[in-house]
Formats: sequence, C-alpha cells, structure tokens
Amino acid sequence: MNEELLLGNIREVLNRLEDTIIFALIERAQFRANPVVYQKGRFAQIPGAESLCGYLLRETEKIHATMRRYTSPDEHPFFTDLPAPILPPLRFDENPLQPNQVNLNPQIREAYETAIIPFICREGDDAQYGSSAVCDVACLQALSRRIHYGMFVAESKFQEHPEPFRAAIRDGDRMVVDALITDIAVETKVLIRVQLKARTYGQDLEGRAGQHKIDADRVADVYRNWIIPLTKEAEVDYILQHPL
Amino acid sequence: MNEELLLGNIREVLNRLEDTIIFALIERAQFRANPVVYQKGRFAQIPGAESLCGYLLRETEKIHATMRRYTSPDEHPFFTDLPAPILPPLRFDENPLQPNQVNLNPQIREAYETAIIPFICREGDDAQYGSSAVCDVACLQALSRRIHYGMFVAESKFQEHPEPFRAAIRDGDRMVVDALITDIAVETKVLIRVQLKARTYGQDLEGRAGQHKIDADRVADVYRNWIIPLTKEAEVDYILQHPL
Repeated sequence: MNEELLLGNIREVLNRLEDTIIFALIERAQFRANPVVYQKGRFAQIPGAESLCGYLLRETEKIHATMRRYTSPDEHPFFTDLPAPILPPLRFDENPLQPNQVNLNPQIREAYETAIIPFICREGDDAQYGSSAVCDVACLQALSRRIHYGMFVAESKFQEHPEPFRAAIRDGDRMVVDALITDIAVETKVLIRVQLKARTYGQDLEGRAGQHKIDADRVADVYRNWIIPLTKEAEVDYILQHPL
Repeated sequence: MNEELLLGNIREVLNRLEDTIIFALIERAQFRANPVVYQKGRFAQIPGAESLCGYLLRETEKIHATMRRYTSPDEHPFFTDLPAPILPPLRFDENPLQPNQVNLNPQIREAYETAIIPFICREGDDAQYGSSAVCDVACLQALSRRIHYGMFVAESKFQEHPEPFRAAIRDGDRMVVDALITDIAVETKVLIRVQLKARTYGQDLEGRAGQHKIDADRVADVYRNWIIPLTKEAEVDYILQHPL
C-alpha cells in the first residue's frame, strides 16, 4: 500500500492537524463573534458582494494558488476563479486517491460562520474585523484540510477490505458505507484527546488560575458536532464515487 | 493617562501576543528550515527578485492594506508599495503615540530568516515551501506587532517620569534611555513565562512521553536574543524621536 495510505501515517497527520485547528480556534476566540464579518454585501467596497471574511479568503486563495497550493491532493480551495500557479510544479508522489469531485467547502464555510463562530466566541462586536477575518482564514483552511483528509482514511480502508465497500457502492448505500468507515473507538479517543489539548493549550499561564482562552468542552463539541460528521460525509461521498 | 498606555493594559496585550507568537513558532517548527524559501531570486517567476517568503508577505500585506490593517497605530508593514484601504476608515481612539518614523521590520525580517529559523527548525529541506512561507507570514506579523508595541511601553514610561527622559533626549544618549526603559525583573519574568508556555503548548499529547513540537528553551532564547533586544531598540528609537 502507498505509504500515505497507512492508517498510522494518516493518524499522525490528523493528530498534528488537530493542534493546528485548536491553535487557530484559540486565536479566533480572543475576539468577539463580530457577525458583521460574515454579512455578504455589508461593505459596499468589497467586490462580488462577498463578506469581509469571504473577501480575505478569496484573495488569500488567489495568492496561494499562484504558489501551487491547490495542486496538492490534500488541498481544496473554497473559490473556483483562481489564477494558475506561477511556481513550477512540484513533483508530488503519485496521488493515492481515486479521481473524485468531493469538495465539502460550502458546507464547511456555512457550519463555521453560522454555528462554530457563535459557539466558540463571546457574542458581540469589538470592531476587530480584520483580525477576526485573518483568524477565520487560518481556521477555514485547517478545517478544510482536516475534513478532506478523510478521503485518505476512506481509500486506506477500501484497500484493506474492498469487498464490502464494493457491494455498498453497487447499491449506492450511504448507510452501509457510513457503517463500514465508522470506528467509534477511534472517534472517542479523538474527542478525549481534543478536550485535553484544548484545555492544555488554552490555559492562561499568566497566573490567573482557572482562566482559559477557550472553553475546552466546546472545542471537543466542535469536533463531535461538525468536524467528525463532515469528515465522515467526505469519506462516504468519496467511497460512493469510487471505481469498483 | 490614555487607557492604552496603562502599563497593566499593555502587559496584558503583550502576554496575549506571546501566545500568538509561540503558537506561530510551533506551527513553523513542524517543517524543516527550508532555506530555499528565503533565497531571493530563487524562483524566476516571482516578481521583483523576491524570495518565496517575501513574495507571500508582500502579497498578504497588499490584501491586509485594503482591509486598512496599517491604519492601526500598532501595525507596521514590511513593504511600502501598498494599496489604499477599500474599507471606510475605522474610528481609532486617538493614537496615544507621538508621531515617529520607527520601523524595525528590516531588522526583524533579517533576524527571523537568518537566525531564528535555523534556531527553531530542524535543518534541511522537506519541500514544504508554501506551508513554511504561510507560517513565516504569521510569525513575522506577530513579531513585528510585539516589537513595535514597545513604543507603547516607552510612551507610558515617558509620561510617568518625563524629566530623566527629557535630559537623555537632549543629550541624544541611547545608553541612558536604554537604562531608563530597562526593567530586569520584568524581563526575567517574561523569559520564565515564555519557557513555561512553550513547554506547555509544545507538548505532544498523543502520549509519546517526552516528545515536544518545539524546544522550549530555544523559544525562551528567541525572546532573550532577538525579541527583547529589538523591542528595546524600538523603545529607545522612539524616545530619541520624542518631542521634549
């Protein structure tokens, strides 16, 4: 099996990405929810009636596209009108995934803006719009990478035991695929570890005992309610598009 | 005194910025030093014979400038050819600093690329150039904000006891200003706290005991050898340009 598909290697990537996501959420949570940042058309000067967050995300993706970010099999852009890379292509090891059309970024952005932000930030407006949007881009990119990385998990599991997957693909049966890729023991372990990480990294070490930069239970709930379900959606979508 | 100049409030900002800097350094340290990222002219396609890091920094600053980032008194750009804001100006509370020309970004970038990167990253090249450069921009922006925030400390100290500063300004005496703004007890407290934070946030909580994402002593040394000296340079430069 391709080295990138060994479950141990995939879990190491996902473990490190967890730190990135938790750091990014902690950084965002220092600012208020600032709903203005997500209102499309709120600033007339922003082209395409995007929100401030969407504007920064799109402009950032344009630059990253020129640096060939989206030629990597584990990167998926939120926008489609992106320029071509100006850097010469990097030789990627053969893409271990099957060709697919999976892109859950619209759902990720929707969940992030409407559910996760009000859940992890104090409500209200502190006028830190630019700083909030910079954090948003870091959060959205890390979440997108994490959730789409589920396809590596799915491909690995398919190669391990292809037959039950083939039957489910033939029947187009989402429920069966979902059951085949679900590992409750691993999910539980992830939730416990995320809570521990958020509690550890979110400590205020200036000595104000009991103060935290983020609610660790809520970070675990972000995984439970959005990241894990969306990852499984990516896995199931991927499998259902898989060649027999 | 202006609320933004109360030393307690300034120290709270600096304490929170410490977390941002440490998170950013931990994120960068997951990749190799990748010296290619800092070589100017290394990629012929990049305009202006910049390095990949410089290219991403400049393009990012262009976007952030349109979002009026550099109208804030605690933000200083690395590049000068930036577009005008497209967002309407935010009402900032009156700038508590005196007009000044202090901008240590050239020194900050030099120290970061040539000294801090080889100090905190494992040597070598892992081909993660884009990911490294994205982390670099986060590091450089956080370092720049932290170091220039010294001017708020300096202004606060000036207003507290203006007379000794006025004498040193008249004489243009850097050494005296340096002595006036130096507080060894606070510096020591910062170094101890930074080491504790880096150790705490740099833990690998996957259970590989003793594994760390970054060398906490080295993070403290980054403060000792570069961040604190450059902050004091910003403070001294600021005071020497201060009206009597």
